Amino acid sequence: MVLIVGGPAANGVDEKLAEITRYRLVKIVHKVFPDGESYVRYPVPVEGEDVVIVQSLYAPQDKHFLELLLMIDAALDLGAERVIAVVPYLAYSRQDRMFLEGEAVSVRTILKTLRNLGTYAFITVDIHKEYSLKHFGERAYNVTAMEEIAKHIKKQFPDLENPLVLSPDKGAIIHASRAAKVLNSEYDYLEKERDRVTGEIRVKPKELSVNGRDAIIVDDIISTGGTIALAATSVLKQGARRVIVGCTHPLLIGDAREKLRKAGVNYLVATDTIPSEYSKVTVAPVIAKLLKKIL
Amino acid sequence: MVLIVGGPAANGVDEKLAEITRYRLVKIVHKVFPDGESYVRYPVPVEGEDVVIVQSLYAPQDKHFLELLLMIDAALDLGAERVIAVVPYLAYSRQDRMFLEGEAVSVRTILKTLRNLGTYAFITVDIHKEYSLKHFGERAYNVTAMEEIAKHIKKQFPDLENPLVLSPDKGAIIHASRAAKVLNSEYDYLEKERDRVTGEIRVKPKELSVNGRDAIIVDDIISTGGTIALAATSVLKQGARRVIVGCTHPLLIGDAREKLRKAGVNYLVATDTIPSEYSKVTVAPVIAKLLKKIL
Repeated sequence: MVLIVGGPAANGVDEKLAEITRYRLVKIVHKVFPDGESYVRYPVPVEGEDVVIVQSLYAPQDKHFLELLLMIDAALDLGAERVIAVVPYLAYSRQDRMFLEGEAVSVRTILKTLRNLGTYAFITVDIHKEYSLKHFGERAYNVTAMEEIAKHIKKQFPDLENPLVLSPDKGAIIHASRAAKVLNSEYDYLEKERDRVTGEIRVKPKELSVNGRDAIIVDDIISTGGTIALAATSVLKQGARRVIVGCTHPLLIGDAREKLRKAGVNYLVATDTIPSEYSKVTVAPVIAKLLKKIL
Repeated sequence: MVLIVGGPAANGVDEKLAEITRYRLVKIVHKVFPDGESYVRYPVPVEGEDVVIVQSLYAPQDKHFLELLLMIDAALDLGAERVIAVVPYLAYSRQDRMFLEGEAVSVRTILKTLRNLGTYAFITVDIHKEYSLKHFGERAYNVTAMEEIAKHIKKQFPDLENPLVLSPDKGAIIHASRAAKVLNSEYDYLEKERDRVTGEIRVKPKELSVNGRDAIIVDDIISTGGTIALAATSVLKQGARRVIVGCTHPLLIGDAREKLRKAGVNYLVATDTIPSEYSKVTVAPVIAKLLKKIL
């Protein structure tokens, strides 16, 4: 049998996943002791079961990570058949290589640790770089929420005007292409350029023009919002009709919201991998589909 | 060659260790990104070296643990010969078995994770239960700070009056016996009893009397201070001249300080496994001694 186990940072993805898959939902019992130590307990036997643990790694990410380790180790100790870690938002995924000699490659440490503990499979959503999955080894999966985000935008804006889907840089073009497919639209990526007169930095679509069109900017993570704010300001200056932003992981640090508002972003939507007031799209269906395939 | 690497939570033990052992000291470069993710970098090559990482696990314990994992994994990735983890205070050591069915045995998860990552040896100080070391496997070592604490008390109080060293319970009697040896004194443990008239809970030495004597209460951890406060109140009522308290790990949560003061504790001393205003004894010498033996 398969159990969906909701960790302290499941953010409702556990419930939606159980609803879709019809697997049994178990909420882990958890608390934090006065000294700050986390505690978890399985309220039902897990012996012989396939245990799907849902725990995202938004802040406080280190505490959520430790809780994930406790849940994995306890499940195996209690005789679980296989443990599958579903980590909707994978913290530390941007430190994916040594940018400077001597640096920790944090995403490797996270994934190695999960694998070494005996995790059978690992599932995450829109990981910053797909090649990071190799640190887990076999049965590491990345699913994308971009189609779900695009479907939501399509529904919210039945009046889209010749939309152009844009990624903030070349590396993220895959997200734009996925969203564009659903929206049946063109896509491109933004490139930085310096204004020769004012010296100002702005971004522009590599090939296409946004003039008179709805710009849909998509990315995996919005962190401080600086990149998206610059993109929004730039495309509006270039004649874009509206700027709609979709991202999978709304970190939205500090004054990110204010930055995006000031930049003229008309609409922002994100997923439930991280809780936020913009997390209106759930990643549960795409995870459910993969789960059914691998279990 | 051996490098002593001071982590973000080394609390000065790294420096004292390097001073005693004459091994080279390296301070890890570290920062925390705006989203809360930790970052570490070795500022010198560690290839072919024995790397002794000093990182205690006081609060925020989960962050300090993750930093420890990053330091271990990075050292091995950078070609370190052996990595030795020196963890003066081991968080999660009190969750050392399933008290209720289904619970995570947190100390096992912590030690397994360190071992699985490739840590060669593990050293801690006054671990809550010695048997927990088995979760690391071979080359897991516990050293005691009790002699160092007793030496400090002896120096601070040249006028000790027929001292009696007490542990708050039977399980901690080993600490009392170790301190008593240095103080050349008797020792005993405290037992709970209920006053038949008032119903009040109090504690009393199992065999000996504290009347007219200096009571020295020792324990591995002072957490909320409740146990030690009760012990102090009780022995003072039983005629103890003064109450001197020594502990290895001063967690001192919430109003612990106030509780101890109100209970009549005359003097409190702890070690530098956790930073506090009472951390006047260093654990570096006992760790240094062990290091020299195993390296």
